[in-house]
Amino acid sequence: MQNHAYVVNGFLHGTVSPLDRGLAYGDGVFRTMKVVDGIPECWSLQYQKLEADCSALGIVCPSAELLMLDIQQLFATAETAVAKIIITRGDGERGYSLPAVTTPLRIIIKSAMPQFPDSNYGEGVKLRVCETRLSHQPKLAGIKHLNRLENVLARMEWHDPEIYDGILLDNNRHVIECTSANIFARFGDALLTPKLNDCGVAGVTRQRVMDAVPQLGLDAKIRVFDMEKLLQADEVIVCNSLFGAWSVRQIEDRMFPVTQLANLVRRVLAE
Amino acid sequence: MQNHAYVVNGFLHGTVSPLDRGLAYGDGVFRTMKVVDGIPECWSLQYQKLEADCSALGIVCPSAELLMLDIQQLFATAETAVAKIIITRGDGERGYSLPAVTTPLRIIIKSAMPQFPDSNYGEGVKLRVCETRLSHQPKLAGIKHLNRLENVLARMEWHDPEIYDGILLDNNRHVIECTSANIFARFGDALLTPKLNDCGVAGVTRQRVMDAVPQLGLDAKIRVFDMEKLLQADEVIVCNSLFGAWSVRQIEDRMFPVTQLANLVRRVLAE
Repeated sequence: MQNHAYVVNGFLHGTVSPLDRGLAYGDGVFRTMKVVDGIPECWSLQYQKLEADCSALGIVCPSAELLMLDIQQLFATAETAVAKIIITRGDGERGYSLPAVTTPLRIIIKSAMPQFPDSNYGEGVKLRVCETRLSHQPKLAGIKHLNRLENVLARMEWHDPEIYDGILLDNNRHVIECTSANIFARFGDALLTPKLNDCGVAGVTRQRVMDAVPQLGLDAKIRVFDMEKLLQADEVIVCNSLFGAWSVRQIEDRMFPVTQLANLVRRVLAE
Repeated sequence: MQNHAYVVNGFLHGTVSPLDRGLAYGDGVFRTMKVVDGIPECWSLQYQKLEADCSALGIVCPSAELLMLDIQQLFATAETAVAKIIITRGDGERGYSLPAVTTPLRIIIKSAMPQFPDSNYGEGVKLRVCETRLSHQPKLAGIKHLNRLENVLARMEWHDPEIYDGILLDNNRHVIECTSANIFARFGDALLTPKLNDCGVAGVTRQRVMDAVPQLGLDAKIRVFDMEKLLQADEVIVCNSLFGAWSVRQIEDRMFPVTQLANLVRRVLAE
């Protein structure tokens, strides 16, 4: 893969031990963020979430300073690119028991900033509804951990490049998220986003959108709702750390009105 | 880790790319088996299950011949050790979509055969019941994939070395398995093992026990049952590829009679 460069435990072009528990069990967490001129966007929020996710698994998160040194090693000033940070519990013995001493592994991967079509910003994107359901695991809900086979299976369901992402439901057919974005549905001046107590990833941008929308006269609310409810929304937007926010113009056969909301949300997020 | 040796894609002491999807998403499968004099026990069944698990994820499994060459490179004749085989989908680009071309990664890890206490064979083992529940994901049930955080969390629940393993229940409080073994409960001449349609790993040894017990006058049955039912069993045994079968002498506070069943099962499995 020539489109990537990486630093592993501080070493450029470093590699990973076959005994790493991130590989063996998905025993670790990750984050994806935009890096502009060598500085990760919303670094303090991103690091806070990385540390919280590590802590939920009992992994000692490397310091923000150490990760920042890695990032500075990999990203030039005057470039905009994507950083993925992976923290694993480190090498393990055979079996699930934790070794007496673990040394977390840290990986930073740089990849090119995706070239999103202009129409995603102007006209919004099209979503589908995935057949793969997210299972309920309250102990892991919200955490961006390395057990992501459900997302992989869901993303394997379609090949149509016109479809930007797929909506993931849980086993109760409640709306949870997209495979790589969180989702919001506006009903009047209420902006609803799914409750993620049983499954899903609580992204940093989801929280930032919730914090930002009161400025736009909207009330952000965390709610449990199903597809039938979502399809009745006045409008739908999706968000993640790379594109900010986009309108959803279509879900399966249902067309949605596209207003200025996503543009306004992006503007507030950029402030 | 000095207790291990490994071959990665045929290379002794090889390493893994930070872009590997097994690491990024747990996008892969594994198997653990005993290797005696350079030959993996029940190789044909083990390979068959490896290939079926790969296939369930849409991964092309490396050939049995290739894996056997790796094993022969790593294991000397006249030694008994443990082989763990990991197959991942290989390197990926950023994001869940599969790259246009994927080249599966194969890893064989050799580790020392664990020294199980003699009493596990004679007197049986003690189990506890885990608080961590297995979530329902029918698309992944039965598969020994690399998304094993539930097992990791469950194994973190206890430190008492007297407890050999923990029983995992699902969200309906049905008995599923132990963190690293399958479980059987005898009621008269019926030997029940949990249905694994929603979660759990359908081990090769579980299948071999089911196939073998008619010789012992027992009827193997796959059933849905909860802890209350399990605690009423005449006896309980656990099985995996490394130890074969052991009696369970105790689950939490409940003592079980230990008969010759586990010994007989081990004898039949060894034939």
